[in-house]
Amino acid sequence: MSSERSAKRSGRRPGPTTTRDAIAEAARRQFAELGYDRTTMRGIAGEAGVDAALVVRFYGSKDALFREVMALPPGIADAMAGLADGPRATVGRRLAEVIVGMLENPRSRSIVLGRIRSASSHPDAAALVRETVTRDVGRLAVALTDDEPETRAVLVGSQIVGLALARYIVRVEPLASMPAADVIDYIAPAFQHYLVGTLAAD
Amino acid sequence: MSSERSAKRSGRRPGPTTTRDAIAEAARRQFAELGYDRTTMRGIAGEAGVDAALVVRFYGSKDALFREVMALPPGIADAMAGLADGPRATVGRRLAEVIVGMLENPRSRSIVLGRIRSASSHPDAAALVRETVTRDVGRLAVALTDDEPETRAVLVGSQIVGLALARYIVRVEPLASMPAADVIDYIAPAFQHYLVGTLAAD
Repeated sequence: MSSERSAKRSGRRPGPTTTRDAIAEAARRQFAELGYDRTTMRGIAGEAGVDAALVVRFYGSKDALFREVMALPPGIADAMAGLADGPRATVGRRLAEVIVGMLENPRSRSIVLGRIRSASSHPDAAALVRETVTRDVGRLAVALTDDEPETRAVLVGSQIVGLALARYIVRVEPLASMPAADVIDYIAPAFQHYLVGTLAAD
Repeated sequence: MSSERSAKRSGRRPGPTTTRDAIAEAARRQFAELGYDRTTMRGIAGEAGVDAALVVRFYGSKDALFREVMALPPGIADAMAGLADGPRATVGRRLAEVIVGMLENPRSRSIVLGRIRSASSHPDAAALVRETVTRDVGRLAVALTDDEPETRAVLVGSQIVGLALARYIVRVEPLASMPAADVIDYIAPAFQHYLVGTLAAD
């Protein structure tokens, strides 16, 4: 994964990217903005400044390209899993920090929005969303409690996708223009409740 | 609005529907399942068993058709507005009942999912989602409190769209197969918190 390496090494403004990186970046941006159906190999090639045949040569099909560039950086799953080690009383806030951090980073935001925008029409995208919720959030929930961890994970997951959709796709105010720190403040109590609170009050 | 009347009069299994009703129903179903981009006048006509020219004659453009069939039944906005009159301690549960009821009803579910599925590519759909959140949920929030009602409305709205996406589009388990009564139990405390709780604990 040379794109992973170069992104890590150089941060927000990478130096000379490889052609493969440029294609991956254009693909992520277009999947995020247009969704799977309206994204074309030709369009990606155009944005990356290469011939469409090169995109096919590097990545094969659009489907294979989607799967490769839409993988979340492993750091995010690791960060979520590590949250169970900290104080239980603030785990909701720490999860909110990881999630909002993921959504504010342009690269991982593209991945999350690309998956959500594509989930309606592309089974692989829906599968990736399900996998993140049940595996990554699920792992955290299981580490925290044996009281319905799967239900807790999907409730957290529903709030994450709803947040992403409302803030970045539908852009409902005041959420769309809110500073990230405020989003963390507002979302943290819901995560705290879903993760370790009394689930259903009856 | 003959479609509103006939649906109200006859409930789930209407008697003879008019051609206009049949077109509206096919359109709602296809917008909900395919989203705006992949829905065609021809496809709607095919499902309704009429000629595409008739769809154009009745509704004009695809855009106009979308706007007309994607209006939420006025009963839902009225029900939400009325919730402020009941006991404050259970307003979250009553809102959860209205929202889950809306999502479990095939007709209003089609409208909600059609809007969400179309919001990525069709500005009108995104505008409808924003409008429901800021106007309908907003009206309830304003009636309940003067402590950041707009923020409360959008937090509730983000949980509603996330619930719809996770349960009906991405279909994450155990949420996808959960009985509606359980969904109400699980979502009610989050709504209660967002509507009348202490918003950000800091």
